[in-house]
Amino acid sequence: MKIALDAMGGDFAPDAVVEGALLAAETLTNEIEIFLIGDEKRIHSLLQKHGYTGSRVKVVHASQVIGMGEHPTKALTQKQDSSIAVGYGMLASKKVDAFCSAGNTGAMLVGAVFSVKQVEGILRPALASFIPKLKGGLGVLLDVGAIADCKPEILEQFGEIGSLCAEHILDIKKPRVGLMNLGEEEGKGTMVTQPAHKLLKENKSINFIGNIEGRDLFNDKADVIVCDGFTGNVLLKMAESIYDILVEKNMKDPFFDRFNYEAVGGSPILGVNGNAVIGHGVSSPTAICNMLHLANKMAESHIAEKFKKHFSA
Amino acid sequence: MKIALDAMGGDFAPDAVVEGALLAAETLTNEIEIFLIGDEKRIHSLLQKHGYTGSRVKVVHASQVIGMGEHPTKALTQKQDSSIAVGYGMLASKKVDAFCSAGNTGAMLVGAVFSVKQVEGILRPALASFIPKLKGGLGVLLDVGAIADCKPEILEQFGEIGSLCAEHILDIKKPRVGLMNLGEEEGKGTMVTQPAHKLLKENKSINFIGNIEGRDLFNDKADVIVCDGFTGNVLLKMAESIYDILVEKNMKDPFFDRFNYEAVGGSPILGVNGNAVIGHGVSSPTAICNMLHLANKMAESHIAEKFKKHFSA
Repeated sequence: MKIALDAMGGDFAPDAVVEGALLAAETLTNEIEIFLIGDEKRIHSLLQKHGYTGSRVKVVHASQVIGMGEHPTKALTQKQDSSIAVGYGMLASKKVDAFCSAGNTGAMLVGAVFSVKQVEGILRPALASFIPKLKGGLGVLLDVGAIADCKPEILEQFGEIGSLCAEHILDIKKPRVGLMNLGEEEGKGTMVTQPAHKLLKENKSINFIGNIEGRDLFNDKADVIVCDGFTGNVLLKMAESIYDILVEKNMKDPFFDRFNYEAVGGSPILGVNGNAVIGHGVSSPTAICNMLHLANKMAESHIAEKFKKHFSA
Repeated sequence: MKIALDAMGGDFAPDAVVEGALLAAETLTNEIEIFLIGDEKRIHSLLQKHGYTGSRVKVVHASQVIGMGEHPTKALTQKQDSSIAVGYGMLASKKVDAFCSAGNTGAMLVGAVFSVKQVEGILRPALASFIPKLKGGLGVLLDVGAIADCKPEILEQFGEIGSLCAEHILDIKKPRVGLMNLGEEEGKGTMVTQPAHKLLKENKSINFIGNIEGRDLFNDKADVIVCDGFTGNVLLKMAESIYDILVEKNMKDPFFDRFNYEAVGGSPILGVNGNAVIGHGVSSPTAICNMLHLANKMAESHIAEKFKKHFSA
C-alpha cells in the first residue's frame, strides 16, 4: 500500500507529521510506503533527527504550502506545487492508494473533487466523522462540513454513502441508518428533513430506521447518522468541546477518552474516486499515525470501488 | 404575583406538579398565588395528602387533558376545557401573570399564539433554553424547537429577543449575541446563516459579536446564541444526553451538574403578549418548582412589555 501524506499540513507541521509517519511505519503491519510531501530539506532533517534509516518512509518535494486561512479554490489554482496539490496529483495518477492531510480542510475537499472527481451518480461527496458509541465501536456521522445546504436527495445519498462506509470500513453488517431530526415521529422536521425521510424510507439499498434525535448520537440506535454539513459540524465541534472540558477538569473515563480526535485521526472524504482523509488542524503524531491507519484501511477495503459499483447500479 | 400551573402536564403529573407547586409556595419570597389547573378532585386529594392548609396554592378545575402525543392544533380546538386551554384563557384574560406547563410542547407553543398572540412586529415567537456557562451563570440559546425552518429575518429577531431575555431575565448588561455557524469567518455558513449574519451585524439594537461555533456553546464568547429551531433542538438534546451519560457513570462535577434540566425548570416562550414557560416532560417536583421561579422572574421583569416596546419602536 502506498500512502501520500501532506508533511506541511497542520498546526504542528512538519515536525508532528514526520513523527506520526514514523509511528505509522512502525505500527502498520502490511507492506506500506508512506510518501511525505513538502519541503524536502526540512523533512530530511527531521528524519535524520529521528535517526530514521528505513525504506518505508519516502520524501516527495513540494515547494509551496497552502495556509490554513487561504481560500481553497484560489489557493489550489495558484499553488500548483503545494503539498496538497502534489498529493492529489499522485492520487489522481494512481501513484498512491490514498492521500492524507491535516492542512486546509476546504482545499482538501475542493482538491478531491478537482483531481480524482466525485463518483459518477454521486451528487456531492461527504465528509464523515467516526463517533464513539457507548456500547463500544464507532458510528458514522455525515456530513460534518462539506455541504452546509443539503437538498433531500443529497441527504438520501449520504445515507447510502454512510452505509457503505460503515459496512466496509467499520465492518458493520446491515448498518442501521438514522436521520438526525428534531423528533422521532415521521412527520417531524424541516422542509429538507421531511422529504429526506421519505426518500430514505423508500430507498431499498439501505437499512433505514427512521428519525433519530440529538440524544441518540452516542447510543445504539443507529450506526450511520445522516445530517447536513451545518448540523454535523456544529454537533461535532460541540462534542469536541465537551471532551476538552472533561480533560481540563481531569474527569477521565474510557468512553469519553474515545471522544479524543487522536483515536481516529481523521475524517474521510467519501464519494470521490480515491481515498482521501482530512486530519484535525491540531494533529499530534498519534493523530497523524491513526490517520494513516485509517487511510490504509480505506484503501484495503476498496471503498471507492464500492461507491462506483453502488451508484452505477 | 399570580401564576397558573398545568397540574396535568408531564409524565409524573399530577403528583410531581402538586409537590413542585408546594415547594415553590414555600420558597418564593414575594406575594404569590399559584393556580393548579386540572382535575380538582385529584389535586385536592394530593394537597390533602401533603397536609397543605395554606392560601398560596389554589385549584382551578379543568375536565380535560391534552396528551403528550396529541396533535397540538387539533387538541386545543377540540379540548377547550383542557388544563392547557384553561391556563391560556386565564393568561389572556389577565387573571394570572404567567402560565407554566410540563405538558405537550406543541400545544403550549400553539396555545400561546392562539391566546395571548405574538407581539406586534415579531415574525415568530421563539422557545429559549438557558445554557450553563463554564465561568458561571447562564446563556440563552434560541430557538430550541419552535421554528425548524427560519428565514434570515427570523434569526435576526431571535438576536433581539434573546438579547432582551438575557438583559431582563438573566440581568446581563449589553449581552453579546453570537450566530451559531460552521466557522467563525464572516463568509461562512448556509443560505440562511450568511444573510442572517449580515442582518445581525447591521442591527444597531444588539451587541452582535459575529459567528460562533459548536465549541462555543459553554464558553464565554456569547451570552445569546442564535440558531434555527432544528439546530437548537439537536444541540440541546445532545447536551442532555451527555448529562445523562455522566450521571450514569457517576461522574460528578459542579459545571456538569448545571446541565440538569431541573436547575432551570423550563424553557420560556419569548415574543408573545404574556409569560409562558414549558417544562420538560419528565419534570420532577424540583423542576416544577424552578419553572415557577422562572415564571415569577419573567413576570417581575415585565419581559413581555419590553418586547412590545422594542418591536413597536
